[in-house]
Amino acid sequence: MGLRTADEFREGLRDGRVVYAGGEQVADVTAHPDIGIGVDHVALDFELAEDPEHADLFAYDDGETGETCSRYFKRPQDPQDLLNRREMIERSTRLGGGVVLLIKEIGTDALLALDLVSRVVDSKAGTGYNRRVHAFHEECKRRDLSLAVAQTDVKGDRALLPSEQEHPDYYVHIVEERADGIVVRGAKAHTTCAPYVDELIVLPTRALKADDASCAVSFSTPVNAPGVKLIASPFGSPEPNTFHHPVSARHRMIDTLTIFDDVFIPNERVFLKGEWEAAGFLANTFVEFHRFTAVSYKPPLCDLFIGAAALLADYNGIAKASHVREKMTKLITYTETVRGLSLAAAHDCRIADSGVAVPNIIFTNLAKFHFANDYHQSVSWVQDIAGGLVVTGPSEADVRNPETSGYIERFLGGVKGVGTEDRLRAINLVRDLTASTFGGYNELLAIHAEGSLEAQKITIFRDYDVERCKSLAKLAIGVE
Amino acid sequence: MGLRTADEFREGLRDGRVVYAGGEQVADVTAHPDIGIGVDHVALDFELAEDPEHADLFAYDDGETGETCSRYFKRPQDPQDLLNRREMIERSTRLGGGVVLLIKEIGTDALLALDLVSRVVDSKAGTGYNRRVHAFHEECKRRDLSLAVAQTDVKGDRALLPSEQEHPDYYVHIVEERADGIVVRGAKAHTTCAPYVDELIVLPTRALKADDASCAVSFSTPVNAPGVKLIASPFGSPEPNTFHHPVSARHRMIDTLTIFDDVFIPNERVFLKGEWEAAGFLANTFVEFHRFTAVSYKPPLCDLFIGAAALLADYNGIAKASHVREKMTKLITYTETVRGLSLAAAHDCRIADSGVAVPNIIFTNLAKFHFANDYHQSVSWVQDIAGGLVVTGPSEADVRNPETSGYIERFLGGVKGVGTEDRLRAINLVRDLTASTFGGYNELLAIHAEGSLEAQKITIFRDYDVERCKSLAKLAIGVE
Amino acid sequence: MGLRTADEFREGLRDGRVVYAGGEQVADVTAHPDIGIGVDHVALDFELAEDPEHADLFAYDDGETGETCSRYFKRPQDPQDLLNRREMIERSTRLGGGVVLLIKEIGTDALLALDLVSRVVDSKAGTGYNRRVHAFHEECKRRDLSLAVAQTDVKGDRALLPSEQEHPDYYVHIVEERADGIVVRGAKAHTTCAPYVDELIVLPTRALKADDASCAVSFSTPVNAPGVKLIASPFGSPEPNTFHHPVSARHRMIDTLTIFDDVFIPNERVFLKGEWEAAGFLANTFVEFHRFTAVSYKPPLCDLFIGAAALLADYNGIAKASHVREKMTKLITYTETVRGLSLAAAHDCRIADSGVAVPNIIFTNLAKFHFANDYHQSVSWVQDIAGGLVVTGPSEADVRNPETSGYIERFLGGVKGVGTEDRLRAINLVRDLTASTFGGYNELLAIHAEGSLEAQKITIFRDYDVERCKSLAKLAIGVE
Amino acid sequence: MGLRTADEFREGLRDGRVVYAGGEQVADVTAHPDIGIGVDHVALDFELAEDPEHADLFAYDDGETGETCSRYFKRPQDPQDLLNRREMIERSTRLGGGVVLLIKEIGTDALLALDLVSRVVDSKAGTGYNRRVHAFHEECKRRDLSLAVAQTDVKGDRALLPSEQEHPDYYVHIVEERADGIVVRGAKAHTTCAPYVDELIVLPTRALKADDASCAVSFSTPVNAPGVKLIASPFGSPEPNTFHHPVSARHRMIDTLTIFDDVFIPNERVFLKGEWEAAGFLANTFVEFHRFTAVSYKPPLCDLFIGAAALLADYNGIAKASHVREKMTKLITYTETVRGLSLAAAHDCRIADSGVAVPNIIFTNLAKFHFANDYHQSVSWVQDIAGGLVVTGPSEADVRNPETSGYIERFLGGVKGVGTEDRLRAINLVRDLTASTFGGYNELLAIHAEGSLEAQKITIFRDYDVERCKSLAKLAIGVE
Repeated sequence: MGLRTADEFREGLRDGRVVYAGGEQVADVTAHPDIGIGVDHVALDFELAEDPEHADLFAYDDGETGETCSRYFKRPQDPQDLLNRREMIERSTRLGGGVVLLIKEIGTDALLALDLVSRVVDSKAGTGYNRRVHAFHEECKRRDLSLAVAQTDVKGDRALLPSEQEHPDYYVHIVEERADGIVVRGAKAHTTCAPYVDELIVLPTRALKADDASCAVSFSTPVNAPGVKLIASPFGSPEPNTFHHPVSARHRMIDTLTIFDDVFIPNERVFLKGEWEAAGFLANTFVEFHRFTAVSYKPPLCDLFIGAAALLADYNGIAKASHVREKMTKLITYTETVRGLSLAAAHDCRIADSGVAVPNIIFTNLAKFHFANDYHQSVSWVQDIAGGLVVTGPSEADVRNPETSGYIERFLGGVKGVGTEDRLRAINLVRDLTASTFGGYNELLAIHAEGSLEAQKITIFRDYDVERCKSLAKLAIGVE
Repeated sequence: MGLRTADEFREGLRDGRVVYAGGEQVADVTAHPDIGIGVDHVALDFELAEDPEHADLFAYDDGETGETCSRYFKRPQDPQDLLNRREMIERSTRLGGGVVLLIKEIGTDALLALDLVSRVVDSKAGTGYNRRVHAFHEECKRRDLSLAVAQTDVKGDRALLPSEQEHPDYYVHIVEERADGIVVRGAKAHTTCAPYVDELIVLPTRALKADDASCAVSFSTPVNAPGVKLIASPFGSPEPNTFHHPVSARHRMIDTLTIFDDVFIPNERVFLKGEWEAAGFLANTFVEFHRFTAVSYKPPLCDLFIGAAALLADYNGIAKASHVREKMTKLITYTETVRGLSLAAAHDCRIADSGVAVPNIIFTNLAKFHFANDYHQSVSWVQDIAGGLVVTGPSEADVRNPETSGYIERFLGGVKGVGTEDRLRAINLVRDLTASTFGGYNELLAIHAEGSLEAQKITIFRDYDVERCKSLAKLAIGVE
Repeated sequence: MGLRTADEFREGLRDGRVVYAGGEQVADVTAHPDIGIGVDHVALDFELAEDPEHADLFAYDDGETGETCSRYFKRPQDPQDLLNRREMIERSTRLGGGVVLLIKEIGTDALLALDLVSRVVDSKAGTGYNRRVHAFHEECKRRDLSLAVAQTDVKGDRALLPSEQEHPDYYVHIVEERADGIVVRGAKAHTTCAPYVDELIVLPTRALKADDASCAVSFSTPVNAPGVKLIASPFGSPEPNTFHHPVSARHRMIDTLTIFDDVFIPNERVFLKGEWEAAGFLANTFVEFHRFTAVSYKPPLCDLFIGAAALLADYNGIAKASHVREKMTKLITYTETVRGLSLAAAHDCRIADSGVAVPNIIFTNLAKFHFANDYHQSVSWVQDIAGGLVVTGPSEADVRNPETSGYIERFLGGVKGVGTEDRLRAINLVRDLTASTFGGYNELLAIHAEGSLEAQKITIFRDYDVERCKSLAKLAIGVE
Repeated sequence: MGLRTADEFREGLRDGRVVYAGGEQVADVTAHPDIGIGVDHVALDFELAEDPEHADLFAYDDGETGETCSRYFKRPQDPQDLLNRREMIERSTRLGGGVVLLIKEIGTDALLALDLVSRVVDSKAGTGYNRRVHAFHEECKRRDLSLAVAQTDVKGDRALLPSEQEHPDYYVHIVEERADGIVVRGAKAHTTCAPYVDELIVLPTRALKADDASCAVSFSTPVNAPGVKLIASPFGSPEPNTFHHPVSARHRMIDTLTIFDDVFIPNERVFLKGEWEAAGFLANTFVEFHRFTAVSYKPPLCDLFIGAAALLADYNGIAKASHVREKMTKLITYTETVRGLSLAAAHDCRIADSGVAVPNIIFTNLAKFHFANDYHQSVSWVQDIAGGLVVTGPSEADVRNPETSGYIERFLGGVKGVGTEDRLRAINLVRDLTASTFGGYNELLAIHAEGSLEAQKITIFRDYDVERCKSLAKLAIGVE
């Protein structure tokens, strides 16, 4: 099959899945007022692969299947493959209003990590996971499946290991082993896009010890499997008003608390089953691939910050003020530092034994670090240029009310030649991106998605060759 | 009379004022679903003055009237008066969930500035404004009036002076002078609390030149005067759900676009009328008093940040992690730098010729600068400690839904001994304060209220005695 | 006696003390080319106490002795005493070219801490230290003695306690107890001013456990006591050329490695002897007093930074450039944040049971934190404004050489009306303060003196009332 | 010839050049105590080209001449050429103790810029400069010449244009045009390495107007040409003691005030003569090439910072302290952000019409910006980890003095197994790099070399495609 249409994708979501939102079970996610917007947003993925302007990038002729497939399923083998992958993610995010689609990006990050790790586990433990991973990867490619990844366990008391917790289910774990598969129980937090993908890939969240071997589990499952239940979060979803919310009324991500209430996983979809020594390795390897995805999808939102700030500087007549130029320069510096380091990560990749190109870990983490570390300040620069009307301006209803529309038109104009409503729309863009429930979602995402700021710092310190530098210092002082 | 009750205050608001919100004119602001919350919030001001626990601070025996009056109307004359004023503002804000009341604070800032400036104008121009200012001040005190200040003109193209604008009404200006008063036209942006105060005080927004003398105007007017029309902003107002929005569902400020559609002001309430040389002086003098109010009301919100972060560090079991201690220390450093400098501003005040104690300008502006400059980063520290659930957690409806409540109770617990719902409430507090429409409001407020960050920097540079430092440098190098 | 003259002070230093510098023992510290500059610098302390312009501040009429004494020896009892102490330190530093004198400041910090701690130790352990501390304090006052404090042990492996060290002498400890006193052994690092003070006060450097009780020792000793040996550090001391080094050729501090090679201390001068539970308490209490000294003496150096930068901005013709104003504003913000918080620390002091006024710990540490945290950046702002000539300009010899002086005069001028040599002197001031061996000394001093940056952070976190903030958060969410 | 030996290079410097230092004219720069160290440092350039281990990188077989030449003279034509150039610069700097050699790097930057600009000038003005530039480039290559670049005019009052200055010679300018050449007068500040290179290339320092056409001049001249006089700066040069100054006693740069006292330049070496419209273009084009050199030579110094800090963390026993790990991580982040962006600049180069590969301007400037902006903070992190002994430790003379050596050996040790002297050497490395006259030189260099921080910010803002971002914002709000 190779490529599905957006409609085929939507049809596939009407499969009996159990999703809760706003206190009720959702009958059809594609028709739900909130979740449906998420569905429409990600449908872009399928549209781009068939769009003559973008198909060259988003689809490729697969040698193994002889079919045209989504390029997300191509395993990267050299810098150019990584640059293509990066460009796919950046472009689709840009076309999606600065909101990543994430229905294949993160899933293929997981598949690449599972490929790398299962090879090692198989060679040490005599297991046969790598073949299963490849078979599942091929099926996803052939059937053009969409994928979410559930990794973060709910964790309870963060200072305790799974087996030390008051409650036995704070980490997803195996509760029964059968001849034909396993039964799993537990819950994963913040699973992005889960209500509207075909498959969930589950990964362990941290390094584990022998006592917690039952938590060392990785697998995939259709979202509509019995026992899988999703509770969708309402936060980050504003009212559906494109005047007030030009971006988020049309583009959004939805996260779930993902519950595995004794879900059966057939053997063929189990990728780790108790090999606890590999849990941290798998968790980290996934995150490393996924951070490259992260630093590929971040720049378009930053571009929007630059654009919105520049537009309002024009509209307000302050584009030449020295402090505005200073803040614009900071926004550019912020954005291009992330972009430049993500490019360096692709160019300076490492080719693993399996032939897969792994983005440079230091540069990837640096790009992510800079993005997360300076995000809130970049918000402040945009808000500073935009002005206080971002939160004291009139509602659309007042703009339309004949008793008040004249006053608003007359008093809230900016520079000559720009319509008052255009100026208000630009102001609303800043509020939507930075000072709304969606803006808050973006702030949290900046800090916590793809591992927290601290996780990047730990990785940078751990992976860096400090010994090389110590040798230089010793050489300089003639020691050793 | 001296002190009014909260009910008397509410009754006074039903006076025929013209307020628009959500596309409709509001019949009774005290009963409006959004604005009513603002009314209830500020009613606290009247309650405290009669509360035995707080009356000593909030009320005082006035020598001139022989009555017990709100202490806001006492002109500060020494450091202790300023410390009392500071404590009133800090305490009422703390009791108001971290949201300043601002129905007397800002108005008396304006009255103090008008007192100082009118003395100078009178002495130069032979006018009699100071007597009017005093009379109005006394009336406010005697009748326990609430006051809003409308200063920021809508401004149009910020690069142009009023008379250079495309539109003649981008600055409030005098359109007619009569024997008994003046008629004013124009609009002011973001007038906080305007829908639920008794009087508006209007001040010029910037220094002016002779061509713009008609914009050099200051006056007071009852909100229900003919021609005064308010368009209330809906932004910053969340849904009225105290689980999702523990603070902002009960405490909020509402800003308006304040329109003067040919409003008549009787002479006795006119405090500046065309003396353009004094416009910048008055604008700045007000802002300097008002920034001291600002740095008095900011710390309680910062305290809530510290408290919410500390609570979640406990609930999540991460209180001893070194990065958490680092971030807690940063939050404390942030908060107490603002608080300490605001105290220094009171202690090191200047006594003006009129006997009024003026807070130290450098320390006041430094306190405000640090608050504004680091606000977004302090948000990031709180969000970092709170975790991703801030924007991916369940809605209250799902918490109450019997089909999902058990899962939520079981999976979203934290450390032993803390109820899941308490943990969710603490998480919701962080979202409400930092990652919601109210959080966005707070971010913009931090940057733009009481003058932007740049305004503080300009003041610090302008008011500092650099020559003293140059002399030290010259002494060191033996020059001159 | 009460007050000594500078000459009496100098005479007192010719007492047979053992000081090494540059590979040789120093015969007379007052005549040594490097150390003598330190002596001349601190002699200012005695001059000010007799200078009609300054005597009111630096001397006071002591009730107990009936004599006029140095005000450093007055125990502060209220905010005004602390403000006086602060002003003495700031003024003498300013008159000393931005370099603190530190021959009474630090010593009286130690005496105040010993007073506080010995009261507690005496009450718990039945010892009689407090009387001895008072007697010594009175003697210092009566004889107008100068004092250094030796606190930082050399420490060896910082990860180990004293008794765990490879070498038994990494902490100063008691090696013998006699009827009439004790014998101590070990070494203290960076004892500032030690070569030219009368007395050394020794304090423990950290909290200790029972195994290290012999390190819980505090005492005073004349510098010329047998076994006391000082090795003076040459770093921070530039060539004695006032053109190249306008400040440091005349004003400097000298630190020593201070060795106690079995030094006998008579009982009357022993202030702690094995009470290990009090070691950390004494170390911290001293540091808290001393940090208030620190934040009192830092602003004059910052003032010089502002002055030098402003002077060069004038001389180079760039004073109106927006980036220069930005950097000047940052320098002012930096300086006055430190100054303002140090004032708040005095105003908001705590009166201890003994009647001594203790500066507010949080504000003192915040002032010190801001000073240390932003010092290097403030250096960069000054250097940025000063320009590259700071390190590429000509030597004085070339300025004087007739073959080159004409070129230098002609080519290295700045704005009209400023002599080339004056401009070069201002440039040299920046190099001396920031880009020389003395500049390096200042950088290290900023970070490490009076406890490192981390020490301030630990103190801030430890001493802050986080529970108060947690209660506010709980109140907001209705928990408990 | 192609490649010269280090001795041939030294011999070439004994050519009668006029260099002043310390008030005297230098007879032989190779034998001068200060300048000779600079000579020995840069001689490494010639040694590497013949060293079997490095010759592959530093030399190449030139197609045009058929000779083996220094690779610096190869015009880069693709990313790999830029990566090679970058690696040459980084490696030679690393082998030179973190100090760049700069006797071909900067000169070839100028040649590449002259090539680009002269093509444009020739096509517009009908001049024949490009041929001359090529001829000079070929001669440098054939004769393996060393080159300095004199760009920064002394400038007088920075707020004035050349023709507005009080003094006519504040910018190098043409004072006479002859048939066979021109005569130039003026002075350039901070010409690095000038005393020990063969040729000086002179470039204009800024954009000019028609009135200043005589300052629009570019040329090359042998250093020993009549009228060229150099005044070497003594700053940055410490005492020649490798214990105290492990790096700078062997590796250093020397800058001069470079005087053109009516120097005759033959036509064949004149590359711009009055075409004032091109002055700014040439100044900027050079700086853009040169900033890529800058960001190639900065990382080795940063590596030394990491290495020295890591070594002392080990020696002091604090490597596992969380604040030390935090600071190490910051040092790595700092270093690799610069390195990663410099790599991105090479990979994402632009191929100019002439076929020359021009490094990406945004990424180059970002790398330089981050380096300069965070340099002083990175110094503070190293100093923080190193400890106060950096400026309070003993001199080498005291370490060798038998009366004190035993004390130093015994008391200044660190962790077990590390010799006291090794520890002191590591401490001295930190002082040499960061807290000495050489450290000060490095700080100024970080800010001012290759254009100040502000210059990078201006370039980033000017060269960025903000319109692209504005279009995205407009698309999002449906405007236009």
